[in-house]
Formats: sequence, C-alpha cells, structure tokens
Amino acid sequence: MQEFDLIKTYFAPLAKGFSGSLGLSDDAAVFTVPEGYELVVTKDAISEGIHFIGSEDATLIAGKALRVNLSDLAAMGAEPICYFLALMLPKDTKEEWVERFADGLRATQEEFSIHLAGGDTTSAHGKISISITALGQLPKGEALKRSGARAGDAVYVSGTLGDAALGLKLLATNNQQPTTENYLINRYLTPQPRLTLGQALRVIVSSAMDISDGLVQDMGHICAASGVGAKIYEDALPISAAAQQRPDYLEAALSGGDDYELLFTVPPEKKYLVPEGCTKIGEIIAGIGVCVLGKNGEEISLNKKGFSHF
Amino acid sequence: MQEFDLIKTYFAPLAKGFSGSLGLSDDAAVFTVPEGYELVVTKDAISEGIHFIGSEDATLIAGKALRVNLSDLAAMGAEPICYFLALMLPKDTKEEWVERFADGLRATQEEFSIHLAGGDTTSAHGKISISITALGQLPKGEALKRSGARAGDAVYVSGTLGDAALGLKLLATNNQQPTTENYLINRYLTPQPRLTLGQALRVIVSSAMDISDGLVQDMGHICAASGVGAKIYEDALPISAAAQQRPDYLEAALSGGDDYELLFTVPPEKKYLVPEGCTKIGEIIAGIGVCVLGKNGEEISLNKKGFSHF
Repeated sequence: MQEFDLIKTYFAPLAKGFSGSLGLSDDAAVFTVPEGYELVVTKDAISEGIHFIGSEDATLIAGKALRVNLSDLAAMGAEPICYFLALMLPKDTKEEWVERFADGLRATQEEFSIHLAGGDTTSAHGKISISITALGQLPKGEALKRSGARAGDAVYVSGTLGDAALGLKLLATNNQQPTTENYLINRYLTPQPRLTLGQALRVIVSSAMDISDGLVQDMGHICAASGVGAKIYEDALPISAAAQQRPDYLEAALSGGDDYELLFTVPPEKKYLVPEGCTKIGEIIAGIGVCVLGKNGEEISLNKKGFSHF
Repeated sequence: MQEFDLIKTYFAPLAKGFSGSLGLSDDAAVFTVPEGYELVVTKDAISEGIHFIGSEDATLIAGKALRVNLSDLAAMGAEPICYFLALMLPKDTKEEWVERFADGLRATQEEFSIHLAGGDTTSAHGKISISITALGQLPKGEALKRSGARAGDAVYVSGTLGDAALGLKLLATNNQQPTTENYLINRYLTPQPRLTLGQALRVIVSSAMDISDGLVQDMGHICAASGVGAKIYEDALPISAAAQQRPDYLEAALSGGDDYELLFTVPPEKKYLVPEGCTKIGEIIAGIGVCVLGKNGEEISLNKKGFSHF
C-alpha cells in the first residue's frame, strides 16, 4: 500500500479532532498554546524485540507506544495536547497490522482525549520501530522536575511496583501469548499514565518522575538531580496481590522497569495533600545514593539496578 | 556504552544552549511560545538503506536527518525553535559512530541556530533509524499552507531541480563513495532547508510546500489541497550546470525526490515581491491535475510521478 493511502485511510481519521493537524495534509502542524501556559514536549521510541515482543496484537503495541509518552507528560504535571507519530515499517508489513495499530491508537486517544497531529510513515529494513512525540501544556512555572527534592521530604509512589517486570517475565519464561487477561501481563502491555495525578501533584511535590527503568535507578536520578540521598523501606513498598504470588516480587519492585507509576517527593508540610492511591515508601536524606532497608533494618544490595538499554 | 552515558557525553552538550531542554535530565522539555505566535511541529523519520545508504559518514546522516525536518518548517514559513531526536541503534553500533553523528548535529545546529531539546536513544534490531521532531514558530495566522493556490497564480520554485536525484543515482550506479565534493552528490547528502526564504514568503504566497517527493507529485499535492490544476513548462525548469551534463536531468527535475526546494504559488499582484533565486515554472489553472508541457508545447507523460515509500 502506498504511504499516502495509508495516511489517508488509517491516520487522517485519527487527526480529525485536532484542527492544528491540518488534516495531515500539510508539511507540519500549526497550533497555539494558551497564554500563561508552557509547552511540554517528550519523545520516546520503542522497537520490536526490545520494547515489545512483536507477537502482541498491534492494538497493544500502539497503546503502549502512546502510553509511555503520556506517562512522561504525567511526570511533568502536564495535560496532553496532541501527539506525532513516526512509524517505520518493514516492507512486508501487512496492511491488517497497520489497521490494528491505528485501532489501538484510536482507543488510547479516546481514553485520554488526545489526537494525532502529524508524523511520518516510512519503510525500514529489519524490524518495526515507532517513535512518538507527545505535547502537553501546564501553567507557567508549575512543571514537576527531578531537581527539587530536599532532605526531610517523604518519598511516595503511585499504584503498585514490580507488576510489569513480572508480567514480562511470565511472557518470556512461560511462552505465554500476550493477553490482557493476566493482571501482571496486562500491567506490562498497557501501562496507565498517571495524568490526573501528575496534574494534582503540581502544587504538592518537590520533585517527580515516572518509573520506567526501575525504582532504585529512577530514585537515583531524582537524588542526583537534587543533590540528595534517599532511604527506601522494603516493607513499605506497595505490592499487588498478584505480584505477591511470585517469589521474585521484591527484585521486580526495586529494579523492574516499565511500571510507569509516578515517583515523587513531598515536603513535610504538604504530606496531608497527597492524593489517595499513593504510598509513602521512604524519605530523602542528606548525602548521595539510594539505600534500600530490608524488613530487619539491614541494607539490601542489588545486583541489577534497573533496566538499561545498552 | 550505557544509554545514560551516551546522552551525557554526546547529546547533553547539544542541548546546553536551550534552557527548555532542562539539560536532557528530566522527563520532558518545558518552554514558552511567545505571545502572538503559533507553534509549528513536524516529524520526519529516516532509515538506513531507505533514506540513507549507511556508508555515509555519520556526520552527513545527522545533517540530513535534521535538514529534512528544518525544510518542513521552511515550507510553513516558520523559524526553528528546537528539535527532539529518537535514535534507534543496533547493539553493535560503534561509539565512534555516535560521536560522529553528534558532530554532524552540532554543525547543523550552529548553521541554523537551533538546539537539541530532548529525545530518546534506544537499541533496535536491524538497521539504524532516526526520527526527528522539529518545532518552530511564526506570527499567528501566517503559516504557509498547501491549500491556497488559485487559478491565475504563478508557480515558482527556489534553487534548481533534479540535482539530488542525479546525485543519488551517481552514488548507486557508479558505486561512488559518498563525498561532498561532487556537486550533485552533495545536493543529495546535504539538502539546504530554505528557512529564510520560507519566512520571507509569508506575505507573498498563496500556497507553499517543500519538494521531497518530486516536483510533479508535490505540485499535485498543492493542486489537490487547493482544488485547482497546474501547467508546468519544461523549458522554464531551473537546472544546474552539473545536472545539464546528465542525459536524464529532465526526469530527475520532474520526478526526483530529495531536492527540498520550496514550491510555491503567487497571486498576480504579488509577483514583483518574489525574492531573487526563485524561478517561475508554470501557472495555476482551473481544473485538476498537473500537466507538463515540453519545449514543443506538447504534454510530457511521466512513467514515475515521484518517489513513493511503499
């Protein structure tokens, strides 16, 4: 199928609700950011065999590609405006795959009230790669950053930790087909960008980010950006009932990637403002590095401090 | 090399000049668009073996990836603000390649006063893919679009046509190494985004776009978006001295991709405003489709109406 036909058939309908997309028929999108607002822009790419398996239904691949970008907007406290898609497809990609992929984008768009605004569809050698750029907005000066944590702040996370890593392990070791029926596998395939929470946190937190590389590694990013250290308490970690059935849930909670929960720090005087569904897991201390204390109060050492691409 | 080390060593320095990048150390970039301005966003991806050969020096690949995106901003009449990069690399990519790639970005950034603002570096199976999202701005309501051409307007192009297609052919058929010394090859490897021209055209043209798929095909896009037809005169086409040495320059000028010159239409009363270096090549007529008239006044038919990815 021709590039222009793919765009017209599958992608232009996804752009209909956003006038700035110019119907995907021009060289670029054009739109206005409201006065008093800042623009927030993030770009994440995912590749077959690295970030997704390839045998998933294309609706799930599309959903995840969009969700991980929306999670970055959530981590900044932004509300989404629109997104751009670059889809790099091997020449033997079936049109049905593209149709399912567009279906997945549509469902995710509807869930988060966002529209496609532009992009590029090209052929590529090798495997499928997808790059999404998501744009959001927030009132000037209210962006959540990684650099504001101070000694004495409490450390919180949203949701539960380790589910996605355990889900991926289930897929890999048991040769299970990707299905959204298993809770852990679904957490891996369909992460939940915490957009509403991120916006609520604007007036509460001293620092924030989303957990994509694992709790300890990502906590380390906040510590490095803020010039502080952190203590994390094992027995405070929020673990789902499904994860608790797995022997390796602690490692997954500490170092598993892909949870896309929000990790944030809160000054003492604002703790009462933290929304429900978030759990205090530790505190910011003077010093450097992240220290995890086990149930007996002794430090836990980790072999693998998160997921790294190279 | 670790993803974070790559970013710190090679990409963070490219973001230093743009405070909204937050030093590439946060989840997203945050910045403001000036009051009275609109945001212009474009996203183009290029893949090894499709859009570039792979044996080019990585500085040239980086330059081209950024230039084709800047050309889209030029086509809208926008001035660039910043860009985002997703770099998908096979695991065996050498660090030296990344270093050269960053060198190419730096040189191109300096030429166009633009900075890296964010992105993603990931591993991928297969070949190298690069997705760039470029952001620009322009005064509200002044974007150049494809849809404004009217019967009676004159059709213009910047620069010369067919050079890039002939350059690519030289590379392919003569097994020549990519070099910037040959004029035609250089035109293929290092397209010149017409940013200054694009901004000057805001108050002159009725429609505009950049030529990436070939003159006839891209003229067809303007005609379709505007609901008009176009006549193009063969003997008016601007052909470089180097291209005139090649027997197939006419086909290249009409249907060769990759020139990244601007194609635009001008109402009769504004013709005197068209900047130097642009050539009138035809006119907009009532009707549909693009008709190319040869030197004898007879219509030229084309086998291949431009470059198509699928």
